[in-house]
Amino acid sequence: MSAQILDGRPVAEKIRAHLQPQIEEFRRAHGIAPTLALVRVGDAPDAVRYTHAVDRAFTQCGMGFQLDVLPSESTTESIAARLDELARARHVHGILLQHPLPPTVDARIVMTKFPVDKDVEGISPANLGNLGLDTGEYFPTSMPRAAIELLAHYEIPIAGKHAVVVSGSDILGKPLALMLLRADATVTVCDTRTRRLADLTRQADLLIVGVQQPKCITVEMVAPGAVVIDFGVSVREDRLVGDVDFDSVKETAAAISPVPGGTGPVKTMVLMRNTVHAAQRQAEQDHGRIQWLPPRRGKKTR
Amino acid sequence: MSAQILDGRPVAEKIRAHLQPQIEEFRRAHGIAPTLALVRVGDAPDAVRYTHAVDRAFTQCGMGFQLDVLPSESTTESIAARLDELARARHVHGILLQHPLPPTVDARIVMTKFPVDKDVEGISPANLGNLGLDTGEYFPTSMPRAAIELLAHYEIPIAGKHAVVVSGSDILGKPLALMLLRADATVTVCDTRTRRLADLTRQADLLIVGVQQPKCITVEMVAPGAVVIDFGVSVREDRLVGDVDFDSVKETAAAISPVPGGTGPVKTMVLMRNTVHAAQRQAEQDHGRIQWLPPRRGKKTR
Repeated sequence: MSAQILDGRPVAEKIRAHLQPQIEEFRRAHGIAPTLALVRVGDAPDAVRYTHAVDRAFTQCGMGFQLDVLPSESTTESIAARLDELARARHVHGILLQHPLPPTVDARIVMTKFPVDKDVEGISPANLGNLGLDTGEYFPTSMPRAAIELLAHYEIPIAGKHAVVVSGSDILGKPLALMLLRADATVTVCDTRTRRLADLTRQADLLIVGVQQPKCITVEMVAPGAVVIDFGVSVREDRLVGDVDFDSVKETAAAISPVPGGTGPVKTMVLMRNTVHAAQRQAEQDHGRIQWLPPRRGKKTR
Repeated sequence: MSAQILDGRPVAEKIRAHLQPQIEEFRRAHGIAPTLALVRVGDAPDAVRYTHAVDRAFTQCGMGFQLDVLPSESTTESIAARLDELARARHVHGILLQHPLPPTVDARIVMTKFPVDKDVEGISPANLGNLGLDTGEYFPTSMPRAAIELLAHYEIPIAGKHAVVVSGSDILGKPLALMLLRADATVTVCDTRTRRLADLTRQADLLIVGVQQPKCITVEMVAPGAVVIDFGVSVREDRLVGDVDFDSVKETAAAISPVPGGTGPVKTMVLMRNTVHAAQRQAEQDHGRIQWLPPRRGKKTR
């Protein structure tokens, strides 16, 4: 029996349709589109390809998009300084800093300096902590949230299930583990170095993978009836390939997300929604400020 | 064969011996002891017992200890207001807010208002996020850190092991999962509602439990040769009992922590170390401030 295909495009389309009137309303009210600044360090081909995908998706929906390319020899300090400028830039509502950063940069220091109010990818320490303790004061991290959206759209329950996450990363594995715990799953986090990895993945009701190792999850590693979600995106012979060996796994899994067209479009829409929410929140705060501050001379007032 | 007993007392004593000269040095330099304020809401017997244990341990070592008992009908706002006062109190270096809070209180809101610089138990959202992303700017959460200290003292490796954590709580399961991932373990987080719990616990190389259900981990749930760490502390017939059925499990496990005398004393010493570090950091910051602020009239200067 062939698995249900967890097509991400209708999920992304549903989010887009919900956002579109909010984007137009924001533009009308504030004379500016909710705007994302994407900061890329260097010109690695995968990074450039991702930049273009975000640019296309955002501008098609009437969002603002700004690209800052920093030289690949950038330092921890110069990246932090650029983030600080963007934190203060009133026309920028969300900031996405593309990873990985050059090895000469201390990514941990950069992340502690990330402007929390504009962290629309949801990867700063403060955001992770608020997500982990479910305080409500965070942006859902875009990759893990995309997995949750996919499952919800196809009405696949999480509570009580054993979720196995093959990724211990800061942008996928860690925040996803916290989200799945909140959704009352039992959660195992492992990676490709894990001993007897197949013994673990075969126990998964939900198997979620993102390690950028093309087709590393083979059919022997998946239990019949499992639900498989793939965040892998690698280029092989000019085609996008996931971490899961799709053609064989789809014969045993109950459901599987394809690459491309699975998690990718949903992730981008989560990022867009977070950017719209960031813009709305910043506008509200500005509004609060304007109520008690005298109008500034030499500046336009609304 | 009987298991190695992971006695926490020599571990606690090693930490205390390392701290003692730092405590004395701080008192000499600043004319005040590093001081913990413990905030307890109400008078539940378990909470009172814990208060006394912390009081005894801290004052024996020459630390400062302050107890604030708030009425059990306290509100979210009144607890947050008290935390805010303690955040500004210069003679208080660390704050411990005892959980659980009354059901009428929104613990999540209280935690977002927790003063990060004095969060010596390491349970605020900002602290969890910094711990998760390993930025270095956090206090190690006291319970999970105690588990890591016990393992280190008895030279039990973590890397490459499968750790099963029976606790999804904010003070144990979540921060411990993040610490174990950082130490390159494979981590499963579950709780007592988990389906087929025994199937999971039997896979553990390291089994770490803290659910306050006396003796819920029976010998059938533990693999021969596993290492078992118990954070349960319940009172039964005037005796302290852990979550692990110690007498039977010790016959199959390779190593096991007892209750009492296992994790408890280590946890208290981690809390003390965090309080000393908090005091040292605050004194450094004050020193920095004094260099450029004029002396305040009407206040003693050092």
